[in-house]
Amino acid sequence: MTTDKNENLMEKIVSLCKRRGFVFQGSDIYGGLAGTWDYGPYGAELSNNIKNLWWKMFVSLREDMYGVDAAIIMNPKAWEASGHVSGFSDPLVVCDKCGHRFREDQLDDKTKCPDCEGKLGAVKQFNMMFKTSVGASEDESSVTYLRPETAGGMFVNYKNIQDSIHPKIPFGMAQIGKAFRNEIAPRDFVFRSREFRQMEVEYFVKPTEWETAFEEWRQVMLEWCKEIGLDSSHVHELEVPEGDLAHYSKRTIDFEFDYPFGRKELYGLAYRTDFDLRSHSAGSGVDLSYFDEESKERYTPHVIEPSLGLDRTILAVMCDAYREEQNTEDTRVYLAFKPKIAPVKIAVFPLLKNKEALVEKAREVYKTLKKEFGAVMFDDNGNIGKRYRRQDEIGTPWCVTVDFETIEKDAGVTVRDRDTGEQKRMSVLELISHVKNELGS
Amino acid sequence: MTTDKNENLMEKIVSLCKRRGFVFQGSDIYGGLAGTWDYGPYGAELSNNIKNLWWKMFVSLREDMYGVDAAIIMNPKAWEASGHVSGFSDPLVVCDKCGHRFREDQLDDKTKCPDCEGKLGAVKQFNMMFKTSVGASEDESSVTYLRPETAGGMFVNYKNIQDSIHPKIPFGMAQIGKAFRNEIAPRDFVFRSREFRQMEVEYFVKPTEWETAFEEWRQVMLEWCKEIGLDSSHVHELEVPEGDLAHYSKRTIDFEFDYPFGRKELYGLAYRTDFDLRSHSAGSGVDLSYFDEESKERYTPHVIEPSLGLDRTILAVMCDAYREEQNTEDTRVYLAFKPKIAPVKIAVFPLLKNKEALVEKAREVYKTLKKEFGAVMFDDNGNIGKRYRRQDEIGTPWCVTVDFETIEKDAGVTVRDRDTGEQKRMSVLELISHVKNELGS
Repeated sequence: MTTDKNENLMEKIVSLCKRRGFVFQGSDIYGGLAGTWDYGPYGAELSNNIKNLWWKMFVSLREDMYGVDAAIIMNPKAWEASGHVSGFSDPLVVCDKCGHRFREDQLDDKTKCPDCEGKLGAVKQFNMMFKTSVGASEDESSVTYLRPETAGGMFVNYKNIQDSIHPKIPFGMAQIGKAFRNEIAPRDFVFRSREFRQMEVEYFVKPTEWETAFEEWRQVMLEWCKEIGLDSSHVHELEVPEGDLAHYSKRTIDFEFDYPFGRKELYGLAYRTDFDLRSHSAGSGVDLSYFDEESKERYTPHVIEPSLGLDRTILAVMCDAYREEQNTEDTRVYLAFKPKIAPVKIAVFPLLKNKEALVEKAREVYKTLKKEFGAVMFDDNGNIGKRYRRQDEIGTPWCVTVDFETIEKDAGVTVRDRDTGEQKRMSVLELISHVKNELGS
Repeated sequence: MTTDKNENLMEKIVSLCKRRGFVFQGSDIYGGLAGTWDYGPYGAELSNNIKNLWWKMFVSLREDMYGVDAAIIMNPKAWEASGHVSGFSDPLVVCDKCGHRFREDQLDDKTKCPDCEGKLGAVKQFNMMFKTSVGASEDESSVTYLRPETAGGMFVNYKNIQDSIHPKIPFGMAQIGKAFRNEIAPRDFVFRSREFRQMEVEYFVKPTEWETAFEEWRQVMLEWCKEIGLDSSHVHELEVPEGDLAHYSKRTIDFEFDYPFGRKELYGLAYRTDFDLRSHSAGSGVDLSYFDEESKERYTPHVIEPSLGLDRTILAVMCDAYREEQNTEDTRVYLAFKPKIAPVKIAVFPLLKNKEALVEKAREVYKTLKKEFGAVMFDDNGNIGKRYRRQDEIGTPWCVTVDFETIEKDAGVTVRDRDTGEQKRMSVLELISHVKNELGS
């Protein structure tokens, strides 16, 4: 029997993340810092698995993609050219009475302060880029910004890629990295934070061929959602209406996800025309046009941008993986991660902690599996039931127990499946082959 | 015959990095931004390979290590407690005449400006942390810093790890991430930059057992240098003399490397006593002591810190891998990377571009290898000699050519070894097994 997991789902997930070591509030012992989050051991492993999977699918296994890792602090001229200095802002209102600050477009009643019912001041545009000063002086000339998106680091390297590797259009660049936005009201756990991680592609195409590329990337993104185990009934494509499109975009699809706090943007896929290369060419004075050998035409490449938030991915994956199973005595909570993204693949237990022969054999099995899969844990703490519960809550697909039959009858180990709770006896070699098979799927 | 590669080695490496797509100047088309660098496709792959190898050796294959990924922007109280706000500074002098700024400890003659021979002003302490302002107001209370080292993000999470995972001492935390220092004089390519990447461990021990842990990590670091292919005769351990130790450290070894610009710090291994946890406990008011179940003692854990710079690693690896081989017609330049860190493992060529049967077969071989290894390239551009040179310069260990014997006699492919230039004929299956074997070593 399954209870209604959706009741207070966000609270449950935030609590589990902290309790089990997935995500902590940033600078926690100092009372935190609003809008920042620290990933603990299981959150860091989950992040690594998702990043590696993304890089494999979006870069390594393709022939037309080039990865980069650009600096977070860029020359401010790049953000002037891209329009971020003048236009990357949110509407800010301040309460005249209590001084609290709000994003005007997030207020239900735009006349009264939601905290003290005081009068709200006039709306001001607040630039969301974090400023900093580079070099040993603090005069205006040295002011720059932390990148508000990873995209900029790719556009400024378009020419470097062309000059060094000479790829033919269509080709793309990819980057995984941090971006920073000074949100007026960070909220919803890691969904809207001030420091976040993006996985972005800028794909350069011939102007007349943008529709084909757009459709191809749309399919890749849907496949990606499956690959990480999202329930496809929770992912919705929203064709952004023409009137709502950014000024440079001719078509955008938002991939929305049913988060516990509502249907919200998970990913975006935008056709950005030649806006970016044209702006950076104008801003830098560097020619960013492309000569197409095949058609003998010169043009500024157009851009298709699949943009994925890593933190939003992790939250979506956690929401979909979260399960509650009502038993006679208690509720079993487990995270049904796809094995390939699970932070720990296998946990190895000796049936009893105080029987040396069991512990010795379990250590031997553990070492073999650890060498093979890396993400393997040894656990001899508490009774087996408690150890199962602990592994369930971090989403470990397989728990392996070494018992008396293992050592006395050479009868293999028992392997317990996280989702079904079923136990099967098999040899360690059979287990390795079973796990390899499941990780490949 | 080998020419003297050391002549102008830095120039050659910087030039190769740009020409072939390893490292570009940050914000290049905008004239750069001093002290920032962007990694291009091969630099990003090389970085990923080194990061993954480090994570495997320092975290995944160990039983006592926990990874984290903490925020770059932290509560400023953390940097007050750690001493960075008051003391993380370099001595700055400004020339009275031309206004240029210098790091006083890097000047040979401390009386005259090296640029215009003008009089230098008094030495001031310049704090190297980048400042920024968090939230919608810019008053003092919202000022914070970009982390100047990844270490801080681990210390503030010590308690979270204890509370969620309950590891027993000794155990460690690990993090790979960016750190920022507003260097007065960034220099020597990626060696001293303003934005850089660290791979750090904080290892918590019982106060009486620091020497054992220190020695263990010392061995791990030496093993690591071998693992990534550094020439051990270029790595030197410098026991930092007592008078030069940081005030909190009781012992530090600098692992220095023979860079073309001199013997400089590559890595550090420091015994930091209980300075960090004690400072953060005092600063936050949170108890960070540990109760040792075995000895029934309560103590503040002491810390061993192996600290590795990723960018310095990449530069060291490039320097040691760089080779010049004088031939009758020209000089062959190649990067003798260990296969496991090489950005591209295999390049596949059809002997001729205009023979459909060769191209078709080469595509088939390419696809098989790509699926198996990911980092595989297809190249049909120019004659075979040119293709070899191109792959040599990015350090591809194996070039595979599909020729007429491959398609007419089913005679396998020719596999050319990057370092020896030798060519061997083998089946694709034999090649896969050969490459797997070499990658494992």
